[in-house]
Amino acid sequence: MFRYFTAGESHGPELTGIVEGVPAGLQLTEDDMERHLVRRQQGYGRGGRMAFEKDRAIIKSGVRFSKTTGAPIALTMINLAYEKDKSNWPVVMAKEGTPENIERITLPRPGHADLTGLQKYRFDDIRPVIERSSARETAMRVACCTVARQFLKSLGIEIGGHVIQIGSAGYEGWEEIRDITSALIGKGAEQVFKKSDKSDVRCLHKDLGKKMREEILVRRKEGSSLGGIYEIIVTGLPAGLGSYVQWDRKLDGLLAQAIMSTQAMKGVEIGLGFDSGKTHGHNVHDEIMYDGSFKRRTNRAGGLE
Amino acid sequence: MFRYFTAGESHGPELTGIVEGVPAGLQLTEDDMERHLVRRQQGYGRGGRMAFEKDRAIIKSGVRFSKTTGAPIALTMINLAYEKDKSNWPVVMAKEGTPENIERITLPRPGHADLTGLQKYRFDDIRPVIERSSARETAMRVACCTVARQFLKSLGIEIGGHVIQIGSAGYEGWEEIRDITSALIGKGAEQVFKKSDKSDVRCLHKDLGKKMREEILVRRKEGSSLGGIYEIIVTGLPAGLGSYVQWDRKLDGLLAQAIMSTQAMKGVEIGLGFDSGKTHGHNVHDEIMYDGSFKRRTNRAGGLE
Amino acid sequence: MFRYFTAGESHGPELTGIVEGVPAGLQLTEDDMERHLVRRQQGYGRGGRMAFEKDRAIIKSGVRFSKTTGAPIALTMINLAYEKDKSNWPVVMAKEGTPENIERITLPRPGHADLTGLQKYRFDDIRPVIERSSARETAMRVACCTVARQFLKSLGIEIGGHVIQIGSAGYEGWEEIRDITSALIGKGAEQVFKKSDKSDVRCLHKDLGKKMREEILVRRKEGSSLGGIYEIIVTGLPAGLGSYVQWDRKLDGLLAQAIMSTQAMKGVEIGLGFDSGKTHGHNVHDEIMYDGSFKRRTNRAGGLE
Amino acid sequence: MFRYFTAGESHGPELTGIVEGVPAGLQLTEDDMERHLVRRQQGYGRGGRMAFEKDRAIIKSGVRFSKTTGAPIALTMINLAYEKDKSNWPVVMAKEGTPENIERITLPRPGHADLTGLQKYRFDDIRPVIERSSARETAMRVACCTVARQFLKSLGIEIGGHVIQIGSAGYEGWEEIRDITSALIGKGAEQVFKKSDKSDVRCLHKDLGKKMREEILVRRKEGSSLGGIYEIIVTGLPAGLGSYVQWDRKLDGLLAQAIMSTQAMKGVEIGLGFDSGKTHGHNVHDEIMYDGSFKRRTNRAGGLE
Repeated sequence: MFRYFTAGESHGPELTGIVEGVPAGLQLTEDDMERHLVRRQQGYGRGGRMAFEKDRAIIKSGVRFSKTTGAPIALTMINLAYEKDKSNWPVVMAKEGTPENIERITLPRPGHADLTGLQKYRFDDIRPVIERSSARETAMRVACCTVARQFLKSLGIEIGGHVIQIGSAGYEGWEEIRDITSALIGKGAEQVFKKSDKSDVRCLHKDLGKKMREEILVRRKEGSSLGGIYEIIVTGLPAGLGSYVQWDRKLDGLLAQAIMSTQAMKGVEIGLGFDSGKTHGHNVHDEIMYDGSFKRRTNRAGGLE
Repeated sequence: MFRYFTAGESHGPELTGIVEGVPAGLQLTEDDMERHLVRRQQGYGRGGRMAFEKDRAIIKSGVRFSKTTGAPIALTMINLAYEKDKSNWPVVMAKEGTPENIERITLPRPGHADLTGLQKYRFDDIRPVIERSSARETAMRVACCTVARQFLKSLGIEIGGHVIQIGSAGYEGWEEIRDITSALIGKGAEQVFKKSDKSDVRCLHKDLGKKMREEILVRRKEGSSLGGIYEIIVTGLPAGLGSYVQWDRKLDGLLAQAIMSTQAMKGVEIGLGFDSGKTHGHNVHDEIMYDGSFKRRTNRAGGLE
Repeated sequence: MFRYFTAGESHGPELTGIVEGVPAGLQLTEDDMERHLVRRQQGYGRGGRMAFEKDRAIIKSGVRFSKTTGAPIALTMINLAYEKDKSNWPVVMAKEGTPENIERITLPRPGHADLTGLQKYRFDDIRPVIERSSARETAMRVACCTVARQFLKSLGIEIGGHVIQIGSAGYEGWEEIRDITSALIGKGAEQVFKKSDKSDVRCLHKDLGKKMREEILVRRKEGSSLGGIYEIIVTGLPAGLGSYVQWDRKLDGLLAQAIMSTQAMKGVEIGLGFDSGKTHGHNVHDEIMYDGSFKRRTNRAGGLE
Repeated sequence: MFRYFTAGESHGPELTGIVEGVPAGLQLTEDDMERHLVRRQQGYGRGGRMAFEKDRAIIKSGVRFSKTTGAPIALTMINLAYEKDKSNWPVVMAKEGTPENIERITLPRPGHADLTGLQKYRFDDIRPVIERSSARETAMRVACCTVARQFLKSLGIEIGGHVIQIGSAGYEGWEEIRDITSALIGKGAEQVFKKSDKSDVRCLHKDLGKKMREEILVRRKEGSSLGGIYEIIVTGLPAGLGSYVQWDRKLDGLLAQAIMSTQAMKGVEIGLGFDSGKTHGHNVHDEIMYDGSFKRRTNRAGGLE
């Protein structure tokens, strides 16, 4: 059983992760993790030509000569601002000492854990809530999950993704998305990543990507932000990986938990998703074909039945 | 920690459940469970005036004088058809003996676990897959979760729900739904159940309910089925119930797992859900107000931040 | 991951168990379970020629034609006294109704969970504590664990056991025990069971068994009970089954938990156990030999390093 | 639920730990952890007046102004030898690069995980097994569990311990141990620690401690090591902390797991332990007295019934 914990505050000295239950002999380097960490840091209106310092997860245990040893893998990710004394963290979030002359943050922001955290822990300063609930935590999650990704890859399972909607700019329907991804998927889901990464809005469709960029610019001028929707594609999965026998073993439930527990996610769909709720049976199933092996012409159930 | 397992096949002698980690002193009777089991069995085009035999969960342990004792609660739900010898189960699914002259089911149905189960377990007869992956399993889940519901109710937490879309018939937008539920929610989420239960399509809106019924009739004539979307509302929750500190403790992830692991569910949204991905920041947050206590005028984040 | 829950009160209508995470295709019948349930019921001074009614676990799901299907296995064990109306349970432990004219049990017995249960749940009647903490719960544990035993057996792993001490009657030392078990172990640990089961005190040594019986008789006349010590032997285990990488994966810890959580157990030893604490290094290790494959001449570490 | 993982190799750059599920507001400093880390490092024949460099766990997250924040607590413990380039680890256990001219360790030691690890992971060098299965891992366990200790202390629960046997030198029986501990226990179990810490063999009994030291000296001259037995005492526990309702919730099982999973432990007893198996009922129970509140004159069941 693969397990992992993350720890660390957004502006603290470091993020820490422990990944556990990893078999020995799996290829894993800091560069493998960096590739995905860099992908996380990029994005239109964030990176671009603007210089940024790359996150890097340092392996502290569990790996020898670029291969896992079976032992737990400890990862640390140094906060570069903190290291360069550009942070006031050592004063306002000091692990020891007493709080003196510290300007408290007391105004909870909507859309964040601020208010809930204040009420739960009865803090008089929101900082500890902001620091831990921050999306920066996902940097360590990316590093930890790269281990899982390497494991899956060793079994021929690939994961890819691309953006399908930003604000009002999005594909017309599932067919349009299928058209643009199907050729790539045939070569493995990572091809979807490789191609979408060439776009700074991660969109596979050139014109649509342009619209997304325009919408971001408009909203930025207004001082607002924008939501979006992405699609995750997995290829190479053997049939029978999940289980239908007990509620807490079902793969669709576990995937939904993983996605929804990510900061700022408000919805998860599998296959047609909510559109299944708006149509009738013949349109939501994937006909099963047999010509030596089982095949299907459509993927309306998201491959998870 | 509240835990439960269900067991049992769709046409087998009984469904079995064990609910564990329940405090002592909680009110619980078989009638409490039956109320929700009956609700599960009803529905337009299924029950109506047509007679059906009610499912009833029998308490075998863990309850004394209508109160839980702290011990595990064992529940069994007898399969009435099996009891009355109307089932061929004792022959085709016999727990002992050898399979003789049994007509195998070998054609996997799309939209079900049939094919996956066949491939996973290398069966030559799909029956064991059909029997366990059947939606009848949710009958025992309803019984088990009534225990959780009673616990929550003892803390002033109520759960309600209603149908917002069947096929092409649905509300125009979130505002329309809020208008119809807000008065009920003020008195506790169970009021939503009580009112929606009066409709055989569980719709709070009379005219919309009529359209849903019409669409069901049309599709039935075509021999097809229809998807739908429902909304779940919880009231009385204290702030800080979930946690932002570790990925697998986050309440939104756990709720998404619970919903998505239910048979036939293909999507979960919290608050605005996917609509958050189609608009900008000012439209997705819920402004925090303070006039002695914290309040919000909107509920776009689904109350889960 | 193999998981199981038990439920049920000592004198209630039935004990219930759900065993989960069992692969499909494993041989399992009610007779397989009964063999071990009968073994649990026997014992000098308990059964003998005296008639007793056999416990039998009834399979309610998860098994077809004597083979597991991968689905959860539900087991029920009917309380025969309850069935025959010889029990006053329906009155004093009724699941519904109100307690009227019920003679409460209020005197907690030492050596039981009585007092702790009373204080934890603030009951005014100890019955619910007595009923659940009773050693009768182990009957369902035996049935559930027979499933695990069948699984292990299919991999060539056998479990056996025998009694090494009752009261003051016991073996002189580990060497004496080894002498008597080593020949049996060579043919698989179940041989140890088969031979020890021929003795009503489960002792492999004829004269020692006689002393144990005598001591039981003496103590019974005094109205007292007697403690004992047994040895569990497992054969056929592949190397590397447990793990040294994380504290909660270590096999010795998990075995100790399983044993110590059984009613009335107060100690667990592996290999030399506490005797290791009374001697020096050369006496506690098992020299590793190599003549094509690895071998050891001694088993002081209990085979668990 | 309190959870923790440790990671790190014996001679690697650092040990890492993440402690999770800790409430906010708990007093915790690096000095609190150091007190117990120093205790772990001491011992007759190991420290004495000989200088040694103290282990120190550095808090990287989850603590602000000496109080926990509810967020996960990340701990790192730097390997001092590694830091000072006195280690050949960077060459023989390098996380990247290829193994060149590295002298392999191929002779598995008895009494360690060496052989099992080799066979499980099919390594051609035992180093990764030695490094992770080493008792040095317990240093991080001590640091992590200090967090639990601080939590328990805030509830008035104290844990103490002392050595009762080294080699052939040990107390005569339980009565002798009770005599020497009972006065200390009355003031809280930490008093037992405080007093036993004054002895370099952690023995509360002066003459017995002398015998232990003598035995250690004799065995050291022979080039051998010695086993031992210690007693752990907990005070301030409320009744009803564990549970009798399900096998995997029982406190005695969980405690046995925690102890037995520690490196080199081969036995666990509660109360009279194995001596219960050698005597009769009247000698193993603790009579329950009542004079306003419940009391017991003896503690033969180890306080865990």
